[in-house]
Amino acid sequence: MGIVYLNGEFIPKERAMISVDDRGFIFGDGIYEVVRVIDARTFEWGAHAERLTRGLAGLRINFGARDVSRLSGVCERLVRDNALTEGEATVYLQITRGAAPRTHHFPPADTAPTVYANATKFIVPLAQRENGVAAITFPDFRWGRCDLKTVNLLGAVLARQAAAEVGAYEAILLKDGVMTEGAATNAFAVIEGTIRTYPLSNYILPGITRKVIVELIAELGLSLAIDPVTQRELGGVDELFLTGTTTDVTPVVTLDGRPVGNGKPGPLARMLQEALTARMYATAGAARR
Amino acid sequence: MGIVYLNGEFIPKERAMISVDDRGFIFGDGIYEVVRVIDARTFEWGAHAERLTRGLAGLRINFGARDVSRLSGVCERLVRDNALTEGEATVYLQITRGAAPRTHHFPPADTAPTVYANATKFIVPLAQRENGVAAITFPDFRWGRCDLKTVNLLGAVLARQAAAEVGAYEAILLKDGVMTEGAATNAFAVIEGTIRTYPLSNYILPGITRKVIVELIAELGLSLAIDPVTQRELGGVDELFLTGTTTDVTPVVTLDGRPVGNGKPGPLARMLQEALTARMYATAGAARR
Repeated sequence: MGIVYLNGEFIPKERAMISVDDRGFIFGDGIYEVVRVIDARTFEWGAHAERLTRGLAGLRINFGARDVSRLSGVCERLVRDNALTEGEATVYLQITRGAAPRTHHFPPADTAPTVYANATKFIVPLAQRENGVAAITFPDFRWGRCDLKTVNLLGAVLARQAAAEVGAYEAILLKDGVMTEGAATNAFAVIEGTIRTYPLSNYILPGITRKVIVELIAELGLSLAIDPVTQRELGGVDELFLTGTTTDVTPVVTLDGRPVGNGKPGPLARMLQEALTARMYATAGAARR
Repeated sequence: MGIVYLNGEFIPKERAMISVDDRGFIFGDGIYEVVRVIDARTFEWGAHAERLTRGLAGLRINFGARDVSRLSGVCERLVRDNALTEGEATVYLQITRGAAPRTHHFPPADTAPTVYANATKFIVPLAQRENGVAAITFPDFRWGRCDLKTVNLLGAVLARQAAAEVGAYEAILLKDGVMTEGAATNAFAVIEGTIRTYPLSNYILPGITRKVIVELIAELGLSLAIDPVTQRELGGVDELFLTGTTTDVTPVVTLDGRPVGNGKPGPLARMLQEALTARMYATAGAARR
């Protein structure tokens, strides 16, 4: 089962148990991150650490930037102890408000947060990257703080399940007539040569890969408009692609069973995919220091 | 610490531990109930069991009406084993989709749900019932399936915390300019002699006490309109009161620091409070069979 980290200890996963009083279990009262690791080097650790810190501050969980920075060493050791130093892995980190008698309001200030992390081998789904994936549209009925990466994830769970049931990879979420993001990815479309995506706001996750893609779009001199794609436009886009820590850049080639563009991965998605790959495999280590 | 129920066993609470892979912990992927117990008799067990069954079906967690009905015996035994057979207690029940490797979509069909229950002594806050409580208004940014009693509760947690910080009991949630409900209660207002409350829909919890109160309003020949109270109206209501399994009928006497009506519990709240008390203490046992 491998070695995981729980509240200061590195232990076999089967021994990693939390109290039924944990506010993660009772309220979904916690924040998580998934970090990509390539040859034992984390990609964009600094950005993940910053988002994690911001999320914990947003929920006012008592685990600050210094505590988060120490998790870098936890990631390193999990990768090593699980013999994942070569090739691809992901580290999952979750911090909850800790275990305390059930009250909706916060527990006593001295309640210790629960800190959990694991590392697992990641097999890059190359065929999905190469051939593209199917997606469906699904109503976005998640709460109004999707900018916080909390474990209140039922909206995403139900959307992804709906996708899985028709053999699709992702559910593209629609709110008030526009595409916000994927259930577990950010989403971009290409319309008349311009790349479009939803603005950073309380309605989407500020994706780390989204941030890198926005940088790469600028570097490559491509045209970007931070402007939501309407449901109406979505039927006629030239390209649609998803980004995420384990999704990289993945083209969507069918949406609700109909081809997107010519039904094949588009040139801009391909270009960004290559640029992301180049950056990930060249600089994964740089962000760690 | 007392005896709790976890996955078929009655064990001391300190031994009640769940896997870090539990989807309750990772996604908030579960449904819960809180049931009132008076002198070892559950109040409205049938209604709680029905709502629990409906919620589990709504999330498609594999735990049906027959499984839920068996929890009645679990409640009885928890009350007995924790020496709560005399006086007031609550039973908390939570069922999650179980422990499985992390995927947003549902885990393999043979994944056993996690079933947890505890019983605790309940001390009725008589002064709150008698004198009324303070409440604040707070934005309702919860998700669009508040009719399901899930453990995705961060919206309620943050609202209740905001209330607690100013010494208030509850946060009255406002969505699109109207009052939906309290963070952990249903809310009723009295305007020109008519009792008003938000309609059953995906935006509020179908409260068991709300249901009983609606019945009592009819029995008492009072005037009820299932019609949302606007934020504008809220400043000038004659009465405001909250209902819930541990709240019974609790008058709100100040809202955002300003008196509600004449700043004292109103006559309709008082009448319904008495009628509810009469029903609870007379018929608690009847619903159990």
